Amino acid sequence: MSSHSFVSGSSAGVYSPRQGQAYALVSAKTAQRSPSNSCLRRINKAGQLQSSAARQRSNLRQQSLQICNVAAPEKPAEVLTTASAGSQARVMIIGGDGYCGWATALHLSARGYPVCIVDNLIRRNYDAQLGLDTLTPIVSLHQRARRWGEVSGQHLDLQVGDICDFEFLSEAVQGFKPDTIVHFGEQRSAPYSMIDRARAVHTQHNNVIGTLNVLFAIKEFAPDCHLVKLGTMGEYGTPNIDIEEGFITINHNGRSDRLPYPKQGGSFYHLSKIHDSHNLHFATKAWKLAATDLNQGVVYGVDTPETTAHPQLINRYDYDGIFGTALNRFVVQAAVNHPLTVYGKGGQTRGYLDIRDTVRCVQLAIDNPAQRGEFRVFNQFTEQFSVNDLASIIKRQGAKLGLDVQVASVPNPRVEAEEHYYNAKHTQLVDLGLEPHLLEDNLIDSLLNFALKHKDRIDINLIKPAVDWRKAGSRNAMMSAAIAR
Amino acid sequence: MSSHSFVSGSSAGVYSPRQGQAYALVSAKTAQRSPSNSCLRRINKAGQLQSSAARQRSNLRQQSLQICNVAAPEKPAEVLTTASAGSQARVMIIGGDGYCGWATALHLSARGYPVCIVDNLIRRNYDAQLGLDTLTPIVSLHQRARRWGEVSGQHLDLQVGDICDFEFLSEAVQGFKPDTIVHFGEQRSAPYSMIDRARAVHTQHNNVIGTLNVLFAIKEFAPDCHLVKLGTMGEYGTPNIDIEEGFITINHNGRSDRLPYPKQGGSFYHLSKIHDSHNLHFATKAWKLAATDLNQGVVYGVDTPETTAHPQLINRYDYDGIFGTALNRFVVQAAVNHPLTVYGKGGQTRGYLDIRDTVRCVQLAIDNPAQRGEFRVFNQFTEQFSVNDLASIIKRQGAKLGLDVQVASVPNPRVEAEEHYYNAKHTQLVDLGLEPHLLEDNLIDSLLNFALKHKDRIDINLIKPAVDWRKAGSRNAMMSAAIAR
Repeated sequence: MSSHSFVSGSSAGVYSPRQGQAYALVSAKTAQRSPSNSCLRRINKAGQLQSSAARQRSNLRQQSLQICNVAAPEKPAEVLTTASAGSQARVMIIGGDGYCGWATALHLSARGYPVCIVDNLIRRNYDAQLGLDTLTPIVSLHQRARRWGEVSGQHLDLQVGDICDFEFLSEAVQGFKPDTIVHFGEQRSAPYSMIDRARAVHTQHNNVIGTLNVLFAIKEFAPDCHLVKLGTMGEYGTPNIDIEEGFITINHNGRSDRLPYPKQGGSFYHLSKIHDSHNLHFATKAWKLAATDLNQGVVYGVDTPETTAHPQLINRYDYDGIFGTALNRFVVQAAVNHPLTVYGKGGQTRGYLDIRDTVRCVQLAIDNPAQRGEFRVFNQFTEQFSVNDLASIIKRQGAKLGLDVQVASVPNPRVEAEEHYYNAKHTQLVDLGLEPHLLEDNLIDSLLNFALKHKDRIDINLIKPAVDWRKAGSRNAMMSAAIAR
Repeated sequence: MSSHSFVSGSSAGVYSPRQGQAYALVSAKTAQRSPSNSCLRRINKAGQLQSSAARQRSNLRQQSLQICNVAAPEKPAEVLTTASAGSQARVMIIGGDGYCGWATALHLSARGYPVCIVDNLIRRNYDAQLGLDTLTPIVSLHQRARRWGEVSGQHLDLQVGDICDFEFLSEAVQGFKPDTIVHFGEQRSAPYSMIDRARAVHTQHNNVIGTLNVLFAIKEFAPDCHLVKLGTMGEYGTPNIDIEEGFITINHNGRSDRLPYPKQGGSFYHLSKIHDSHNLHFATKAWKLAATDLNQGVVYGVDTPETTAHPQLINRYDYDGIFGTALNRFVVQAAVNHPLTVYGKGGQTRGYLDIRDTVRCVQLAIDNPAQRGEFRVFNQFTEQFSVNDLASIIKRQGAKLGLDVQVASVPNPRVEAEEHYYNAKHTQLVDLGLEPHLLEDNLIDSLLNFALKHKDRIDINLIKPAVDWRKAGSRNAMMSAAIAR
């Protein structure tokens, strides 16, 4: 990989085993001088290094490294952008090894935010359980973090453990002292939650109890910390009225109140996020915590400037029937001349966004934090599409690459409305400065060509609709059945 | 207790240990002839025994006893009422050892419904953890059930185990084959859920996962079974508009939809019930289950005709700062000349009902079941009172008994509005035939005199507000601190 051979910072990983069930890895920030490569120049072009900010960052980094018991570097790396007007908040990213989490961690780290990734690596285990694999060859979290240190000059703290283990979480929070916790650390697949009883229970336990622990950890150890929690647009279901951002003013029998928007989850996964939202709302009231709930739409795409800075920084890309979201799955089907499998009538309409907008939305939420006592909800998506809309766009754009994209309707494995009204508001993040990437403009570059590049790794067996909502049973589903029944 | 000395039925309990963590007890129905005492005559007066119904009950009982491997009685007892027009549904009562559950089990059993109590006895353990005790001297569940068999001639099936253990639950459901499951089996104290992190997590895990298991057990083993689930009026919080029964029609931007009523829980306990409601709603849609969510108000009172049929059938009565509900607590304070402790301004308004109405509401829900695919919500209370209203009523009625009732305001340990609008609908159960007991008419007989009778067992130290919502910590609260900090 000659384009990356310029990387010359020394690399060292320091493992510090800890007591108890979980274990932690402290990966040292090691780049001693500024790399100067095209990838990082690309990151740099949006900002200018300010010496005071650099000093502040240097101080923060030294503080971080003292916590890690690793010698501080003699001078700060000069590869940072200041595209953010943020306060260089110390950001703990729970679930930082996942699809959105990894991209967000690098996006923030590149911009000078001290970042600590907390992850129990269970996302990789789900793939192992079910015989699935990401389209892209990802390396271990530890190797990713080391590589990022070499490429960027930025240190990533790692804490490998389970937030359902409160002893682990409380040590992580007390050690890193976050200003913001971004919480992606949940089982995030609706089909996975509908495989069988054990996985439904796992999903709700893992997500609800994990988030409860985060709330208690903030209350106890970091009461000023802003929680940025990933929710989902799926919490709203498909009501026959406009979807507002978290709250709706209801006029009823001559009186009026602004109340939480009614929730109708479509799977045990979506329900777990609804439960989280209610718990968050209460904690902001009872304990004056500051929380932002990002009700995110369906994310598509894979590359961000940071993840393309080195092959070992590549993000995961799920196209299977369980973790693959609609658009990413369709793109892979198009790449291998498989008909796009539209579930039922295809009128199912949802909000979508590019992963490059996910990372910017999270940054906007961090830079413009909720106040203590405030529970703020942003609908985080940029465009609405029906499944049929997506199929049409892919067919049209695919033709430009010589792909003859066919569309097939398959029986809908989910229980959902296939034709419905859908109009969801999403103005608050735009008001904070979000400039969306739009699908039609970016489909070929960021998706179709990407899938074609990795075509040899595609296993078409993994794409089938794998989980029938009506058949979720109490017995453990056979692994093979889970992916191809 | 000469008034009960007529009881002459033989008694036998048959233990059948089972594999695994949980264990089961099968308590035989043993009364071989009809007792004829004043208490049971009182039960009888509302109804007439019909021979066809008796035959049906006999058949059902034989079926039940075959499951239990206990010989069927030669002739049915003739102590039953036919006050119910019900179908003699087989009713599994989860949480049947608790306050509402025990009264409901006996109410239904007296009316000929074959009843199976499922309980892990954790309510008794909570008291042991915290050094609390019911005002009334209750005996073991096993002794209660045996005594009921002797007094009534009716058999109570017992299954002692934890519904979070799906193996246990699935065997219980497959063995008893319920037509209705009444689910009281949850941690039901808001203060308990706010003691510390461990108890908040316990509450949400126990309640949410237990209910998920019930949903899966019904789907898998008893798909026609009607689930009657106890929710709480506290799910709605205190909105500034009228509270409807579960759903509200919202007109918004020129469109309209009937949506779940917005929920705002005031403790991790209340939130657990909100989570349950969302999970139930989904399961009725995805799997066509039949469910009724009874959003119950604050229950007061203790005696029902069945629980007074023998001293060993007495119900529990909680007056402590953690499990004691407002009215029951006030009555005990009045009995011992302790000022009624009003939290804050006392404008907190809620729905209330007599426990004799709880049992009738549950029966009405059983006798008029939800249809498959239907998620029905009833607001289960009969009158609204503010805390100040309650204090005034007790002061007024207490004076008739020569009690000089004082009222004191104490700092509110909860986070809640102390002055607010409150108007909650509760017509559906009345439409089904509920004739409420009203508080003012019954306070002296069913509450004040009861507390005076058991005055010697009152421990005034247990009444203090025990748990401060703002102080819920991540460390395990000391047990002594939990009741008197």
